[in-house]
Amino acid sequence: MRFTSEQRLDDGVLEREFTLGEIPGTLWTPRSTPAPLILMAHNNGLPKAEPRLAARARYTAARGYAVAAIDAAGCGGRPRSAAGERARADLRRAMRAGEPVDEIFESFIAPLVHDAVPEWRTTLDALLELPGIGGPVGYSGWTALGIRLSVVEPRVAAAGFFAGGYVPRAQRAEARQVTIPLLFLLQWDDEGNPRQRALELFDAFGSVEKTLHANLGGHTGTPSFELEDGCRFFDRHLK
Amino acid sequence: MRFTSEQRLDDGVLEREFTLGEIPGTLWTPRSTPAPLILMAHNNGLPKAEPRLAARARYTAARGYAVAAIDAAGCGGRPRSAAGERARADLRRAMRAGEPVDEIFESFIAPLVHDAVPEWRTTLDALLELPGIGGPVGYSGWTALGIRLSVVEPRVAAAGFFAGGYVPRAQRAEARQVTIPLLFLLQWDDEGNPRQRALELFDAFGSVEKTLHANLGGHTGTPSFELEDGCRFFDRHLK
Repeated sequence: MRFTSEQRLDDGVLEREFTLGEIPGTLWTPRSTPAPLILMAHNNGLPKAEPRLAARARYTAARGYAVAAIDAAGCGGRPRSAAGERARADLRRAMRAGEPVDEIFESFIAPLVHDAVPEWRTTLDALLELPGIGGPVGYSGWTALGIRLSVVEPRVAAAGFFAGGYVPRAQRAEARQVTIPLLFLLQWDDEGNPRQRALELFDAFGSVEKTLHANLGGHTGTPSFELEDGCRFFDRHLK
Repeated sequence: MRFTSEQRLDDGVLEREFTLGEIPGTLWTPRSTPAPLILMAHNNGLPKAEPRLAARARYTAARGYAVAAIDAAGCGGRPRSAAGERARADLRRAMRAGEPVDEIFESFIAPLVHDAVPEWRTTLDALLELPGIGGPVGYSGWTALGIRLSVVEPRVAAAGFFAGGYVPRAQRAEARQVTIPLLFLLQWDDEGNPRQRALELFDAFGSVEKTLHANLGGHTGTPSFELEDGCRFFDRHLK
């Protein structure tokens, strides 16, 4: 892991860019260490630099967590496969035409999740070697990736999932194997993500402690108080 | 309003029993006043002295609220109508036989709500005359009563409803007239209260700010952290 830049933010959080082989990442750390680690990913492989994710990471770090985000293979600014590019073009065309989009999502999100998991695990190995970062580990954001990681990665001890993203059939099928404490965040009127499917997924998780927070509004309308609720959830399980 | 007893609890909360005409009530007040007022009622007219309600009231008062509960007409220890007694006997028989219970609930919960509303409003008038109790006013608990109160009582500024109780048709129909900020608390596997009906009710509320918290488990299994979440909701709207 090689740090390529750093800046100290107003709230004392240190924001550092790093590379780990081909993987670009960002690590936010609080003034006070050692801090528990939270892996933070955006649904559907959106960039780690996306302002909503960065704001969430900074807030969480200011609350006493080390937060890391990467652009995994095919995600964010990383090169996309030719098949992935074709699927995204198909998706735009189908959405304009009002046609079903599930199979198109399946065709490119399933490989994204598959390829992302080993890179997040490699990153986790490297992060836990750093001074000032301790366990246990939390996960926040991209539901499909989080389901897969929770199933294969015993170091992830609690997770907050955001319901607004396509969840491939394989991850829907393994949701009942997720047994860690969960906070599942749903926007009640999320335009592209059927509410009923999200409720069925919440029902399917195998966790004994699972909580659903649903708020009125569309995909990007999550109220700001959910940021604090998310941190309080992690406080209960990681601190 | 006449206070009939008082005791100072360990956390500094003052717990006082009162009567207001025929209405028996309990008022919990924090050390620091003036405090915003929260009216707290149990679904289906359960007694104000029920330990889960009393524990919730004490916790909330220790967090800086004046909290009041009454046994309205036909509720708690108050005399029941002959029709109400018959309905409860019918209900027990129907439940044992596995028969439908909606019409039986309708027959005695609808009158309970109807009769309770004016008594809660009379109590609210009297409470707001007391020194150390200020507005705005919150409401917590019994969903059906809370819907009716929120529609007719402009002084109620925010409400937390617990989904575990029968909501008469009249209140389901007027749910869209509820426009104050809401926190709706649902137990995902509440034995006697169909989940789908609760989700439809959440959908129907007219409030622009409404949040659903759903947790795994049965009717009485609400996790203790929801107590703090409820207070934080009121902190945002009443303080």
